[in-house]
Amino acid sequence: MAKTIYLDYAAATPMAQEVLAAMQPYFFDKFYNPSATYLPALDVKKDMEQARSKVAQILGARPSEIVFTAGGTEANNLAVQGVLQQYPKGNMVTSAIEHESVLEPATLYKHRLAPVDTEGQVNLAKLDKLIDENTVLVSVMYANNEIGTLQPIRDIAQMVQAIRQSRQQKGNQTPLFLHTDACQAAAYLDLHVSRLGVDMMTLNGGKIYGPKQSGVLYVRAGIVLKPQVLGGGQERGLRSGTENVAAIIGFAQALELAQAHRYKEVKRLQKLQELFIKSLEQGVSNVHINGSRKHRLPNNVHITVPGQDNERLLLQLEEKGVLAAAGSACSASNEEPSHVLAAIGLAKPDIRASLRFSMGQQTSAKDIEQATKALKSLL
Amino acid sequence: MAKTIYLDYAAATPMAQEVLAAMQPYFFDKFYNPSATYLPALDVKKDMEQARSKVAQILGARPSEIVFTAGGTEANNLAVQGVLQQYPKGNMVTSAIEHESVLEPATLYKHRLAPVDTEGQVNLAKLDKLIDENTVLVSVMYANNEIGTLQPIRDIAQMVQAIRQSRQQKGNQTPLFLHTDACQAAAYLDLHVSRLGVDMMTLNGGKIYGPKQSGVLYVRAGIVLKPQVLGGGQERGLRSGTENVAAIIGFAQALELAQAHRYKEVKRLQKLQELFIKSLEQGVSNVHINGSRKHRLPNNVHITVPGQDNERLLLQLEEKGVLAAAGSACSASNEEPSHVLAAIGLAKPDIRASLRFSMGQQTSAKDIEQATKALKSLL
Repeated sequence: MAKTIYLDYAAATPMAQEVLAAMQPYFFDKFYNPSATYLPALDVKKDMEQARSKVAQILGARPSEIVFTAGGTEANNLAVQGVLQQYPKGNMVTSAIEHESVLEPATLYKHRLAPVDTEGQVNLAKLDKLIDENTVLVSVMYANNEIGTLQPIRDIAQMVQAIRQSRQQKGNQTPLFLHTDACQAAAYLDLHVSRLGVDMMTLNGGKIYGPKQSGVLYVRAGIVLKPQVLGGGQERGLRSGTENVAAIIGFAQALELAQAHRYKEVKRLQKLQELFIKSLEQGVSNVHINGSRKHRLPNNVHITVPGQDNERLLLQLEEKGVLAAAGSACSASNEEPSHVLAAIGLAKPDIRASLRFSMGQQTSAKDIEQATKALKSLL
Repeated sequence: MAKTIYLDYAAATPMAQEVLAAMQPYFFDKFYNPSATYLPALDVKKDMEQARSKVAQILGARPSEIVFTAGGTEANNLAVQGVLQQYPKGNMVTSAIEHESVLEPATLYKHRLAPVDTEGQVNLAKLDKLIDENTVLVSVMYANNEIGTLQPIRDIAQMVQAIRQSRQQKGNQTPLFLHTDACQAAAYLDLHVSRLGVDMMTLNGGKIYGPKQSGVLYVRAGIVLKPQVLGGGQERGLRSGTENVAAIIGFAQALELAQAHRYKEVKRLQKLQELFIKSLEQGVSNVHINGSRKHRLPNNVHITVPGQDNERLLLQLEEKGVLAAAGSACSASNEEPSHVLAAIGLAKPDIRASLRFSMGQQTSAKDIEQATKALKSLL
């Protein structure tokens, strides 16, 4: 069998060697509970707080605004449920193409879904209309996990700010928070929360070469959330449980590495992305590239080849050593057609004819040549 | 400085080398998302399911009854909130000496606290009286994290079973579940859920030489819980989020090791415990051993030396290389006097004069000799 070409980095990334090296001491020598009172434990706490400061610095935030969670899904739940549980009359507006970890908690509360255009971008005017005087949370993802489309977060933030000002003038005291799920964006885009204008932001270590079930919810100072996991009061009471110190250290290391290399890596991946798309467009008569061509993650190529069956294609690609995905891994096991592809207007047969390729650090031009060659041979 | 003698295993355990070795492949080679559809990911899923089966076997349970969580605190929250959120009229009865991760979620619902005797054991008759026709959950910990007292879980289970039968006769359809927090018990006691008679049980990897924020909630087949973390539907919908495969593998390995060695380890630690207690009772005029002498974790020694100040003592012990605790690590950072010690009847000055020593795998007789010598020199 040929060398395996992994093109599903959006589902999971291997850990960076530097990340494991950073974590290693906390498994044995520095295993202490950071809430204990002796010096070796205080040292562990100090290391953990340094990791928090490192993350805060990358986000342009204060350390006290960084809440470490057990993964991106948990952080999204904390943002959504942590706000909505406090406002029984409140509602939430989110996009139709969010990850399940935003959409599922949203179903527990009054919520409305903002439609997206055929490229997967939220229409600002339509989003604006959905926000009423009782809306307390707007949650729009930074970059989509299936089709790679980026959302105009800065513009949405300005809109939200204008609504806040208008509420103030009307004497409406209801707060309005803007959350963004940046899990897929964190390795490639600017995460500076003030430049983005967001109040809350979710990050996920498992998608940026860090440990799985490590994550962060950035929570702007002054925002009160209802904690979802109660107990010893760790993470300022927002996420109880003895801290997963190794994962926290690993997360910070992974984020630092990803952000340090992101300019170079974005350029490199954009070239591969161009190569990938050109090769398909030249070699496959009927291929459609989904998502925005301009506002797009550099590592994502999402295609529809009408008439094809993606399950069969995935198996045949795997036989040729290429690992790709039909939808997000989370929903891979259930039979539901992708809500993201439905939202951009794909009919069921076209959804079943769609494939996601997501590249990453180990992806080379040769990989892309081989993968596209394999794909073309099947179409 | 002398060699450090760590006597705070109840707060945190170092990871076993075998545990890290078992986890290692899942950081790099087997990093795949277990929900993906290609063979290497299915292999990861298979390994994860083997870990689940391993845990199930130790508990005498079915694999489908094992829910992996991000830690013991999360598992306790899922048990408490997952039941109580479904029964608006329901209430919960728990003991006054539970861990914060049971007590804090309990405060969100109707609940009553069963008192304990001066040794920390729940009085069955009093517990029985607190359970009314609307009680849906009884949660009593297997072993206390501060004073080491074991609870008569089998007897409580029989009592709960009798109440269920009586309800059935009266036509009361309200279910009644028995949960036990076994975080501190898992390395030393029988975890067979049918022998114990429990419906739910919490385990924590971070206390049994496994990874931090790895945990299990055993949920007897047929019990419906309201999920607390929503999203992709992992763990039968009860804990969404890409599975922390390495931690799951590590947890299973840690539990297997702990249970395989528990008979030998219990005997070894009981001897050290006896040595510790005898040495103090012979050398310190005014020492009181808290908790039950008979029904006790083998690794716990908890003392009160009236008139002393535990914060000062801890610092002086640390200067002599001995690391111990005043209360649980979770509450070490806040100023509240221990609710456990208050519940067994200690007055505030005596609570401030109390120390917890908890031993573990690396503790030797020599360590105990040195620690007790150091302690006696300070008293």
